[in-house]
Amino acid sequence: NNYFKIAVLSGDGIGPEIISESIKILDVIAEAFQYKFHFDYGLIGAEAIFKTGNPLPEETLKICKESDAVLFGAIGDPVFDNNPDAKVRPEQGLLKLRKELGLFANIRPLKTYASLIEKSPLKREIIEGADIQIFRELVSGIYFGEKFTDPDGGYAYDVCKYSREDIIPIAHMAFQEAQKRNKKLTLIDKANVLDTSRLWRKICQEIASEYPDVQLDYMFVDNAAMQLILNPKQFDVILTENMFGDIISDEASVIGGSIGLLPSASVGENNALFEPIHGSYPQAKGKGIANPIASILSVAMMLDHLGLQAAANKLRQSVEHAIENKYVTIDLNTKQYYSTSEVGSFIADHI
Amino acid sequence: NNYFKIAVLSGDGIGPEIISESIKILDVIAEAFQYKFHFDYGLIGAEAIFKTGNPLPEETLKICKESDAVLFGAIGDPVFDNNPDAKVRPEQGLLKLRKELGLFANIRPLKTYASLIEKSPLKREIIEGADIQIFRELVSGIYFGEKFTDPDGGYAYDVCKYSREDIIPIAHMAFQEAQKRNKKLTLIDKANVLDTSRLWRKICQEIASEYPDVQLDYMFVDNAAMQLILNPKQFDVILTENMFGDIISDEASVIGGSIGLLPSASVGENNALFEPIHGSYPQAKGKGIANPIASILSVAMMLDHLGLQAAANKLRQSVEHAIENKYVTIDLNTKQYYSTSEVGSFIADHI
Ligand SMILES: CC(C)[C@H](C(=O)O)[C@@H](O)C(=O)O
Ligand SMILES: CC(C)[C@H](C(=O)O)[C@@H](O)C(=O)O
Repeated sequence: NNYFKIAVLSGDGIGPEIISESIKILDVIAEAFQYKFHFDYGLIGAEAIFKTGNPLPEETLKICKESDAVLFGAIGDPVFDNNPDAKVRPEQGLLKLRKELGLFANIRPLKTYASLIEKSPLKREIIEGADIQIFRELVSGIYFGEKFTDPDGGYAYDVCKYSREDIIPIAHMAFQEAQKRNKKLTLIDKANVLDTSRLWRKICQEIASEYPDVQLDYMFVDNAAMQLILNPKQFDVILTENMFGDIISDEASVIGGSIGLLPSASVGENNALFEPIHGSYPQAKGKGIANPIASILSVAMMLDHLGLQAAANKLRQSVEHAIENKYVTIDLNTKQYYSTSEVGSFIADHI
Repeated sequence: NNYFKIAVLSGDGIGPEIISESIKILDVIAEAFQYKFHFDYGLIGAEAIFKTGNPLPEETLKICKESDAVLFGAIGDPVFDNNPDAKVRPEQGLLKLRKELGLFANIRPLKTYASLIEKSPLKREIIEGADIQIFRELVSGIYFGEKFTDPDGGYAYDVCKYSREDIIPIAHMAFQEAQKRNKKLTLIDKANVLDTSRLWRKICQEIASEYPDVQLDYMFVDNAAMQLILNPKQFDVILTENMFGDIISDEASVIGGSIGLLPSASVGENNALFEPIHGSYPQAKGKGIANPIASILSVAMMLDHLGLQAAANKLRQSVEHAIENKYVTIDLNTKQYYSTSEVGSFIADHI
């Protein structure tokens, strides 16, 4: 198979700018490797609210469901952030999309680049060489449990619920990834307090017997928040539930000093979505200064997912070539820098 | 009033060693300032489980309820950490004590010491000068909401519930603290996902009108986990719910590089508990290497709470004197260091 349908959701803020560099890359890859990518564009987030009133229009969902993969930019707009009472919000589009597509595993690789280690807020000796892969459960837990606010405003609650079936598939995924890497899996939870955490521990313990070569550790989430800063090199693969994963993976994303480089994949049974970790960064919108690499590396994850490893590897090499040659945006080098589209073209040319 | 009843719960691991330095300090203060401290000792945690089967014996609770303040060491033992199925756990003792005493606000000051800035995992320019006060709600939320595990192990849930009355008192406390400091309060929540977070925002917004001189900001917890590392100096007073507070305050505690120095207070309507932030550190037990300063600074917070500001200030000066003169334990200076009790005595002598 060399024909792929890609749903493209550029979204808000710098989303469109970085996505257009990713399309540039995919066009070059199509030519170099003789693939055909068909792009279907859909609205999402604030953009979709402004144009249709709905953060995830039916048409967008349809395009995504019929696609082989979804390429996602970013969502979010200050108009909504400054209005906590807004009933319709860009985030709802993303959450609903995750649920509808069954994207149960959010995968975030954290890797450092020798030439960029100085950008880290951490001291060199602490961060240098850290290489972590995080698996965050994405369609259950407190995000999707029952929610209630008393109409009189007297109280509210959110339910964090997990069932066996929510945990088993992502746990297997994380164990399998650990097998391919350094064979160490750390489950992050709060099993000294939460019943759901104890269920996670129990199930991971059961599954562990199928992966005797993987060492399974447990760490409380409060301790993990410290250990990520004190000694990130102790981690190999991390597995965690939705809310803890939101916090821990964002914390992890900044310790490398280059959040503008970090891709992510959200995968399910029948579909997958690829998205840079940085958000919509509205202050930078339209200025041509956004770093396109996180989105471009998300394309590399997409190519892996589609089974196009040769193209993915070539793309990663080209990104590393750009970084090594300091052909980067202003966030990575304030002395000598290039625009979003110059960086995209430099990488495309190298392919 | 110059007579105070202090409940002393040394607990596990290095708890007894550091608490005995705190008692040494209180004895000296009693003499210097003509106070009388009466100490009642109680069992808690693993120690209490081993001796009575109960992590919070009735007798301990009684002592605490009748006290003017509780001096707390640490709890936790590897015997329990390595057995997630244990039905009785040391942590239950602490959680029950918080609830029974109504200690709704956990207060953690984060401050850096010029002479110790090199110990921080963060680069000097990022951490130097950071000074944050965290208010964590401590007796509600997902810690104390309904919990359930299906007997067949098919699913589990934990309910995060907040009512107006849970939020209002701690919110006032945080606003008042901000008034005394740099007049900036940051509420950390996940209001783009959780109903309980939206309730927190609403109530804080209402209360804000009573504190027109305080600037109230909101930050999503995932972003906060990043911002604490990228730019901790942007924070003044932080307010947050129980679970987020557990994670965020532990993260904050390591960025200064000296978790062995950080005290905390857990306060309620009728009682208060003072505890170092570091845990029971079982590997160090009985070796005389534990840093007593976090517990000693918790005593300073206790003195403040009892209205003994002069003694509290004198104690803080004496601690700073020890740190400046590098009269510290091995965690702070591996070249020249003193034992737990030498550091305690040095500080006591200075008073
Ligand atoms: C936008 C928000 C709802 C979302 C989340 O919390 O999952 C984001 O923070 C993320 O991590 O993708
Ligand atoms: C021991 C544990 C239950 C406790 C908590 O999570 O509150 C601890 O981590 C703390 O922060 O005091």
